[in-house]
Amino acid sequence: MRNRFDNELQTLDETMREMGELCESSISLCIEALMDGNPKKAQEVVAKAVTISRKEREVENMCLKLLMEQQPVATDLRVISAALKMVSDLERIGDQSNDIAEIVITENLSAANDILNLRRMADVVNDMVTSSIEAFVNRDAQLARHVIARDDEVDEAFNDAKQKLIEVFGGKNNVNMEYALNLLMIAKYFERIGDHTVNIAQWVLFAITGVREGNTN
Amino acid sequence: MRNRFDNELQTLDETMREMGELCESSISLCIEALMDGNPKKAQEVVAKAVTISRKEREVENMCLKLLMEQQPVATDLRVISAALKMVSDLERIGDQSNDIAEIVITENLSAANDILNLRRMADVVNDMVTSSIEAFVNRDAQLARHVIARDDEVDEAFNDAKQKLIEVFGGKNNVNMEYALNLLMIAKYFERIGDHTVNIAQWVLFAITGVREGNTN
Repeated sequence: MRNRFDNELQTLDETMREMGELCESSISLCIEALMDGNPKKAQEVVAKAVTISRKEREVENMCLKLLMEQQPVATDLRVISAALKMVSDLERIGDQSNDIAEIVITENLSAANDILNLRRMADVVNDMVTSSIEAFVNRDAQLARHVIARDDEVDEAFNDAKQKLIEVFGGKNNVNMEYALNLLMIAKYFERIGDHTVNIAQWVLFAITGVREGNTN
Repeated sequence: MRNRFDNELQTLDETMREMGELCESSISLCIEALMDGNPKKAQEVVAKAVTISRKEREVENMCLKLLMEQQPVATDLRVISAALKMVSDLERIGDQSNDIAEIVITENLSAANDILNLRRMADVVNDMVTSSIEAFVNRDAQLARHVIARDDEVDEAFNDAKQKLIEVFGGKNNVNMEYALNLLMIAKYFERIGDHTVNIAQWVLFAITGVREGNTN
């Protein structure tokens, strides 16, 4: 019985890791699509978001089944409850990537000169996604805390991006407002991805320590 | 034993309802603060967001304790799992309201003429919050489905707001970019609140029917 249960917990870890990888490649594709003005790459993100949503349901069903049939206690219960919560944040990362991709597809943007430093922002949040999932799979509290600490960097990058837009476009004549608003939304979506990795990391800490720390995003 | 368990489930319902009411009054205060350019009302929203976060932890602890000590099955397990998920969406509604309030406080905005129809948007999402919590407390699937159906209205209102900004500011001279970007962010926060009520309604349906339907936001 315990053996089957352990196998199911391992499948849970593997599926979470798969979802994490899908999120990472979505974020990478988003920034490439944006920098190259390539709607084809953006289309791939849209497809991945569908897969991520499907996997969310798989994990939810897995967790609910484990809760119902195995009546787990202590650490196992914490790990399963944490997975049930984390999976929503992973799905929303897919969703935010999808929102970025849709802007690239419909708005024919080309931000190749990257005045807002969006590539850097994408790299940071991508690292945070990778680390938050690693922290879960390896039950690594230190790595989870590292993810939480990095969120300030992302918030600052969003504020910098907003200021930069005001600096570049504010008080100017004949402003391409649509372009400016779309860039702001993209920066915001990256910032939200950072927030979701913090939520994941906080649930990882709960799974390990049994204590819910800090604020939620 | 069952009696104590029933009492605890009732406390759970009551706390969810309290959180819902805090969210509703936060949204109302946000739109009043914005329309009157009143940072004092916005400060109240900031204080409420702290209370909402604290209540989120209370509900989480309640749910985890019920899962651990009572090993619930069937409908009870579904209700508790749903509450554990929904509470994050409620907390994020508090968070989005807080984000709006912070813009009102720091940016000295006055959108009194309401060119973006934000008051209407606030009214709709406020109704959706109320209904989603009512649907949970009364286990009302029809009301939950009604909330989900209304989200298109909110998405459309956001797109209209964005188009309106482009229309009003695009191609103009000496644009107040900061003002435009802040209004867009506020519209986006209201739209996200709508998304969170849809997530809540979907979990209500799961609690009632045992089936997870539709996509997540």
